[in-house]
Amino acid sequence: MIKKISDEILLNGKAYSNLHALCKGVGSRLSGSAGMYKAEDWGVSTLKAAGAENVYKQECMVPHWVRDKNRQASFNKKDMLAVAELGNSEGTGTKGVSGIVMEVKNFAELEQRKDEVRGKIVFYNYPYNKSLLGGGYGDAVRYRSNGASQAAKYGAVGVLVRSVTAANDNNPHTGALRYNDSFPKIPAFAIGIKDAERLSGLIKDRYKNTPLFMYSNCKMLPDTIGHNVIGEIKGTEFPEEVITIGGHLDSWDLAEGAHDDGAGMVQSIEVLRVLKSLGYKPKRTIRIVLFANEENGLRGGTKYADDAKTKNEKYIMAMESDGGGETPRGFGCGMTEEQFAKVLQWKKLFTMLDADRFNYSKGGGGGADIGPLQTNFKTAQFGLNTTGNRYFDYHHSATDVFENVHERELHLGAVVMAAMVYLVDKYGL
Amino acid sequence: MIKKISDEILLNGKAYSNLHALCKGVGSRLSGSAGMYKAEDWGVSTLKAAGAENVYKQECMVPHWVRDKNRQASFNKKDMLAVAELGNSEGTGTKGVSGIVMEVKNFAELEQRKDEVRGKIVFYNYPYNKSLLGGGYGDAVRYRSNGASQAAKYGAVGVLVRSVTAANDNNPHTGALRYNDSFPKIPAFAIGIKDAERLSGLIKDRYKNTPLFMYSNCKMLPDTIGHNVIGEIKGTEFPEEVITIGGHLDSWDLAEGAHDDGAGMVQSIEVLRVLKSLGYKPKRTIRIVLFANEENGLRGGTKYADDAKTKNEKYIMAMESDGGGETPRGFGCGMTEEQFAKVLQWKKLFTMLDADRFNYSKGGGGGADIGPLQTNFKTAQFGLNTTGNRYFDYHHSATDVFENVHERELHLGAVVMAAMVYLVDKYGL
Repeated sequence: MIKKISDEILLNGKAYSNLHALCKGVGSRLSGSAGMYKAEDWGVSTLKAAGAENVYKQECMVPHWVRDKNRQASFNKKDMLAVAELGNSEGTGTKGVSGIVMEVKNFAELEQRKDEVRGKIVFYNYPYNKSLLGGGYGDAVRYRSNGASQAAKYGAVGVLVRSVTAANDNNPHTGALRYNDSFPKIPAFAIGIKDAERLSGLIKDRYKNTPLFMYSNCKMLPDTIGHNVIGEIKGTEFPEEVITIGGHLDSWDLAEGAHDDGAGMVQSIEVLRVLKSLGYKPKRTIRIVLFANEENGLRGGTKYADDAKTKNEKYIMAMESDGGGETPRGFGCGMTEEQFAKVLQWKKLFTMLDADRFNYSKGGGGGADIGPLQTNFKTAQFGLNTTGNRYFDYHHSATDVFENVHERELHLGAVVMAAMVYLVDKYGL
Repeated sequence: MIKKISDEILLNGKAYSNLHALCKGVGSRLSGSAGMYKAEDWGVSTLKAAGAENVYKQECMVPHWVRDKNRQASFNKKDMLAVAELGNSEGTGTKGVSGIVMEVKNFAELEQRKDEVRGKIVFYNYPYNKSLLGGGYGDAVRYRSNGASQAAKYGAVGVLVRSVTAANDNNPHTGALRYNDSFPKIPAFAIGIKDAERLSGLIKDRYKNTPLFMYSNCKMLPDTIGHNVIGEIKGTEFPEEVITIGGHLDSWDLAEGAHDDGAGMVQSIEVLRVLKSLGYKPKRTIRIVLFANEENGLRGGTKYADDAKTKNEKYIMAMESDGGGETPRGFGCGMTEEQFAKVLQWKKLFTMLDADRFNYSKGGGGGADIGPLQTNFKTAQFGLNTTGNRYFDYHHSATDVFENVHERELHLGAVVMAAMVYLVDKYGL
């Protein structure tokens, strides 16, 4: 059966062409944007085309953060830096914000020099650590998430964060920040890494005493209506037992969200399509969920889990793909030790697919959107893991486009996901 | 030590910049070409810069096959197909060759229809099988290698071979053919896969009775002088025991030979550089060999092994990287069962590097250039294996350029190679 799954996807897979339709027909789809609504429609029709029954949209309120193309970080309004606002950031007001740039290497340095911060623009120049074999994202992303409020606490008027990326280019990489309500909400930009290095030099020399000017009219509007998009195949033996597979529907507005997370959506839909097209009748209900608002709120994942709790649904597993469409390597497995022992019995089947790396953690480990399901249901979590050497080159930047996804790599991910779903459906967990 | 190796290569590695210098400064380097001599000079200076002692060139005669930019496969000299001569092919003579195209799916069909072959141009339209998880290259390449003589045996005047590639583009992918001296040496072209599909339609319809015109002035000139380029670090305890690591110096003339096999050369040189730069004093002699003429003759690998035999050298292992600069997955291991048991004890160190897939075969399994060393010495062979999902997109075509190699993936390959070399040097095998 796994060979059949593999053959069908590698020879006739639709994930890649579905991704093309999404990236080129819809494009970016940040929560609350016109793209979000178009993507929901794409989700409904793509799920139907894949053979899903009972396709519907589950309403949830989502944040509605907006910006336009006018933004600036410059010296003397001439020497421009490559920047993009961090998601959820406040704007600068029409007059902009100015301040001397204070570079810090990390939070420890900020603490040491906290008395110098007032009235300044804090520049977190923490490099992505390429020597970390798991990738440096988790290590560096805290400056993006928490840097603004940490600096505001000491009186900073704005923040620049070195882009969290493994690439050597100069594209700013956006991503959500979280404000701490105890401190002023100051504007925060990501800066391309080449310009981060350039800025580091400029403020020691040419612009030592020149304030940096920041301008953006980005803002958070009132919450608006969004949707999880859902489709399923009803189980034949245990229809009340649900297997959820998903990726997230929203994506940042700088590109097409091809890896993040168009890939996860089309792979999830492909799992349903391949089982359907092979005539497989699942014992359990296989449900695909395209989650709203992962990037800057997680409202979709939360809503889905809350609703499932209200309905007292029964979950046997939840799977998520949100690590990009690269070559799969296995799964992050968040489950009981007994469940994991069972998964390990299937390891050799995944060795065949060169994706037998199962990383165990008792709680979590599956992904952001399915996390809330575990809290409510102790559901076994599977998060697709990939080689991951390219994902953070593109992540949240202008290069996260269809052309940077490789058909075979994307399809192999769907093969590995479908194989695990098949095994859990057939043999339980 | 392996963490030190990894840090040094991932943070300060030179393989990628060396590859840039090779691809953009030298470019293609087919045996006998001016590029080959430039590449030899590049090899000498790059090995020296990496810290190699005793850098020298080992002379060997190499075939000298040439072509120019004029080639054609067309109907009525107007409707052109995307083609490139297979390496070692004879030309068509100044008047070209014409014949009705006879499409066959495989050798079995050729045999069945052998009576129809005389005077025709045989078109092998055997598709690359994408459902094979190891990749479809080995399965399809026999039409490129042997198709010309098989068709000539039954009186064909020319051959077209569907490009052996996993890509969806229309680039012809060249590669060596082997003529069987018992039959006429007829000209043979690779055809881009989109044009292969188009041709398949045309000859059933519009050009059913129209001969195809083939033209090329490619030819084999007399053998000329080439060189293996060699550099080493002398062992401190057992200098007479040699560990050889290599890639091949020559590359096809349609691009820059970035993956094939610029990657293998710069990774091999990086192994030496990292050990040297970390101040490691190897027990055994670590010798880097940039092999001449892998693509259309294997004269370098043969010469190196013959010379080693003459000198009665002692080999403990030989390693080759010739599968492209993609994410490493482990090694093909050609060695005794006792040696392999020892290698398996180190497996967990490679799990850390996500490259612990060791595929055992008693004989061979390392690679073409180091194969002759095994024949002579029973040397343990290691061939770097990669994820391999992209390699045959580029292989032997115009897209095998620097831009299609990813820095981190290339460098991870060098990490994995250096780690194994270190372990074998330190603990023996």
